[in-house]
Amino acid sequence: MKAYVYVTLKKTVLDAQGKTVTQALRGMGHTAIADVRQGKYFELTLAEGSDSEAVRQEIEQIAAEVLANPVIEDYRIEFGS
Amino acid sequence: MKAYVYVTLKKTVLDAQGKTVTQALRGMGHTAIADVRQGKYFELTLAEGSDSEAVRQEIEQIAAEVLANPVIEDYRIEFGS
Repeated sequence: MKAYVYVTLKKTVLDAQGKTVTQALRGMGHTAIADVRQGKYFELTLAEGSDSEAVRQEIEQIAAEVLANPVIEDYRIEFGS
Repeated sequence: MKAYVYVTLKKTVLDAQGKTVTQALRGMGHTAIADVRQGKYFELTLAEGSDSEAVRQEIEQIAAEVLANPVIEDYRIEFGS
């Protein structure tokens, strides 16, 4: 089983990296792009037989405490195969 | 309309950052985690009225030529609201 964690800066936090990408794309003539925000993406492969509610809570804890900084970042978790 | 671009290192490329996260999590006692791979995530906000096939091709081109390095990275695009 796999868990996918997406971490993005909160909407209220200035995303300097995203702004730079936006400016670069517009400078290249891609005027259809209004805004870009950049984030991080983690693909966690779980050990065999770990598809339990306890493991889901563990992933939730890992995302909140290790992968994201909840002061400035939001995160979203998806589980898949 | 929004486009979401996920960029990850190819399976055959060593993901040193992901390995470091894996070791850190295991060191913290999270033994359910077998492996972690890290990637980038871009959220592109498109200009009003840009929901056309041409814009989709433009996003495809941007992902391949700007956001990802096709030599070592794979990318995946999703469109949403």
